[in-house]
Amino acid sequence: MKAVRNRFLMDESDVPTHWYNILADLDVPVAEVRRARPDRPDRTDEPNRQAPNIPLSMYRGSVGRERFVEIPAEVREAYQRWRPTPLVRARGLEAALETPAHIYYKYEGTNAAGSHKLNSALAQAYFYKKAGVRRLTTGTGAGQWGTALAMACQSMDLECTVFMVRCSYRQKPYRRVLMGLNGARVIPSPSPDTEAGRAVLAASPDSDGSLAIANAEALEHARRADDARFAVGSGENHVLLHQTVIGEEALRQMELAGEFPDVVVASMGAGSNFAGLAFPFHRERLRTGAATRLIAVEPDACPKMTRGRYAWDYNDVSGTTPLTKMYTLGHTFVAPGLHAGGLRYHGAAPLVSALYERGWMEAVAYGQNAVFEAGALFARTESVVPAPESAHAVRAVIDEAVRAREERRSTVILCNISGHGLLDLSAYDQYLAGSLEDHTVSDERIAASLAALPEVLSAGATS
Amino acid sequence: MKAVRNRFLMDESDVPTHWYNILADLDVPVAEVRRARPDRPDRTDEPNRQAPNIPLSMYRGSVGRERFVEIPAEVREAYQRWRPTPLVRARGLEAALETPAHIYYKYEGTNAAGSHKLNSALAQAYFYKKAGVRRLTTGTGAGQWGTALAMACQSMDLECTVFMVRCSYRQKPYRRVLMGLNGARVIPSPSPDTEAGRAVLAASPDSDGSLAIANAEALEHARRADDARFAVGSGENHVLLHQTVIGEEALRQMELAGEFPDVVVASMGAGSNFAGLAFPFHRERLRTGAATRLIAVEPDACPKMTRGRYAWDYNDVSGTTPLTKMYTLGHTFVAPGLHAGGLRYHGAAPLVSALYERGWMEAVAYGQNAVFEAGALFARTESVVPAPESAHAVRAVIDEAVRAREERRSTVILCNISGHGLLDLSAYDQYLAGSLEDHTVSDERIAASLAALPEVLSAGATS
Repeated sequence: MKAVRNRFLMDESDVPTHWYNILADLDVPVAEVRRARPDRPDRTDEPNRQAPNIPLSMYRGSVGRERFVEIPAEVREAYQRWRPTPLVRARGLEAALETPAHIYYKYEGTNAAGSHKLNSALAQAYFYKKAGVRRLTTGTGAGQWGTALAMACQSMDLECTVFMVRCSYRQKPYRRVLMGLNGARVIPSPSPDTEAGRAVLAASPDSDGSLAIANAEALEHARRADDARFAVGSGENHVLLHQTVIGEEALRQMELAGEFPDVVVASMGAGSNFAGLAFPFHRERLRTGAATRLIAVEPDACPKMTRGRYAWDYNDVSGTTPLTKMYTLGHTFVAPGLHAGGLRYHGAAPLVSALYERGWMEAVAYGQNAVFEAGALFARTESVVPAPESAHAVRAVIDEAVRAREERRSTVILCNISGHGLLDLSAYDQYLAGSLEDHTVSDERIAASLAALPEVLSAGATS
Repeated sequence: MKAVRNRFLMDESDVPTHWYNILADLDVPVAEVRRARPDRPDRTDEPNRQAPNIPLSMYRGSVGRERFVEIPAEVREAYQRWRPTPLVRARGLEAALETPAHIYYKYEGTNAAGSHKLNSALAQAYFYKKAGVRRLTTGTGAGQWGTALAMACQSMDLECTVFMVRCSYRQKPYRRVLMGLNGARVIPSPSPDTEAGRAVLAASPDSDGSLAIANAEALEHARRADDARFAVGSGENHVLLHQTVIGEEALRQMELAGEFPDVVVASMGAGSNFAGLAFPFHRERLRTGAATRLIAVEPDACPKMTRGRYAWDYNDVSGTTPLTKMYTLGHTFVAPGLHAGGLRYHGAAPLVSALYERGWMEAVAYGQNAVFEAGALFARTESVVPAPESAHAVRAVIDEAVRAREERRSTVILCNISGHGLLDLSAYDQYLAGSLEDHTVSDERIAASLAALPEVLSAGATS
């Protein structure tokens, strides 16, 4: 029997001992990444009002220049319950595409939360707990981040409260149940529990809610008690840092496979998924001089990298946070309601933005039908249903592989399947029924939200 | 960092090369297992009218006395896409129970069909295809078996038609979408496509359907074309044989863990899941003289082992199949609508029944709330949501582990988590909300269906 090897598994003792801090290899002064609002110069040192008082132990690792940050033993032990995740050679997809390309995928959907989000949720729960926090709270839409945080809190023995957008709470009950199973209190938002919620309900009692409202409620809830904090699922340096466990594993697994990727592809929401896979490969290509391309894939409906601007902007729609230098469509931009809810954020993480601005990576955008076509082909050929977010990466992988076939050249492609789509099958159903909308965004709409970018004194911008 | 090892993974080269045929180690004359109906003596040699003309290559391996049956290379290669499945030490559950017991679970929910059913679906698709069959058809309730068969047909390039009970088709759309994604034609049953369906619709146009109707439609559909067959998901010898790949892997993984189980636990529908894990351990305990107990766990709502009778009975509610000697509640017994739909079959597989009758195994039964309580604890402590069927096994594991704690003795428990419960979260929701029914079945009801067992001439029963 021939010894084909398509799944590169590692033992739990192979879970990385360190996260990778790209600031060691990317010249981005912190002052160039985050600054106080023009009207609040006293708050320069506060990393983000959305995450007030984040523990110093967590903050420190994500703004220093130390290349490797040790993963605390408790977090590593928690990772060992499902990590290392598999790296798989996608031979079924290769055969269907008749491509000479070798396609590999790292699969982050094997944990019970169903996505990569758990990597950071566990780390955050650990650091907050160590800092004396007893309760974490967050807002969630479809619920990927909320589910991960609920499980992390369960695992680290913290209370968890999740404000869930009311229409998702009603229409997508499965992740709500998952959160409940893990002991989280899940509150449909807008709720009568907070001033923010009551204000919305007073004006519109039947409001479906939105992520902005849910987050506002969660923030208010967290501010109420000294031992409560608001936890964020992407964008921040520390979140990107935690996710590098994905790429660190993939580096070693590609070694086991005896190849190094020519192209690394990941979907792009705020950027923690992309950074998690791609950053360690950036370090490695710097070391070896490999010409590896890094590609972020975003939806046509929210094209912050391909059509946005590198500028100072707020993190929230109401403009209450400090300013971040990032690729952005403007904080007033509201993406159409696409199924890949995790990719609807208006901006890109500062570190991913810096990498892009310096020409170290590429970005592409796709419409929903092209994305789900790719996801469905992947499901059929690889027996894994990718989350709608992850299907974006698959779309780009397929196009790269087809190009390789047309140009008759071999190439090695690595992508990240950040989560499974088992709780998103209604979206695939719509795709199969031909009733999925392609959301395109007009130039005028983007120009309008870019025009609402905050004014920044040029002197302040570089201080 | 201490080297704890809780996940016993193996490489794809470790996928077993052979299935295990328990007929080599269990003295059951085939004539004692299956016979023609009293009124149809000409059909003695037909294994089952539900599976007419099953390929000889598949049939042969499941009625011979050869101890090991080689897994065809194509099937083994298909298995390698997700097998070996993990064996995990359930330290979270152990800690929660404060038990000295060592608890291990074999996890069959990692493939895209979400359960062990794919093990047999792939093998059947292979054998049928080799025999010239081009289309497989089946009936499905909630859809575990239908999903597995759809994926197997996709993988072996066969057409697949699934008749799905109409109320499930409407209320549990996710598995329907999964089947559709894998190219299967999914037809809500009763349908106007078959005589059986039309008859039901004529009498009751809004019928919700039932598995019996769906199977009748699938059988009719399969009989229509020479190159079509009806495929069954459990009960038959060949299905049990295919599932032994689970136990063969678990044997080697327990060796990696350096332990041998004192107790092996699995949930019991028709028996392929139980047999898949337990049969290889039966062989091994015969070889070594180990006093390992094998426990099948069934629902209170369908207690064929604990309250049924070892008797000749039909496989279907209408009494059209040949007779099978098995533990049964009577073919007219209809289990209440519990969430573990996979455990509602009125009888037990002939080979499992023979093992039970000869005193080689035990059986226990539980009510729904006790089962979901166990499933929820498992989800919280092990980050895996067990399917309602698998949660039955967890309930028995917990009780064994608690007994070990009370008796202050160490014990090694192995169970099978046959599938994940991500598409059954509405059932967990009901459990959390306290609205789950415990279905008990009265003695009178069982006595009534046992009274309807077919009469068998005692001379014929042993011929």
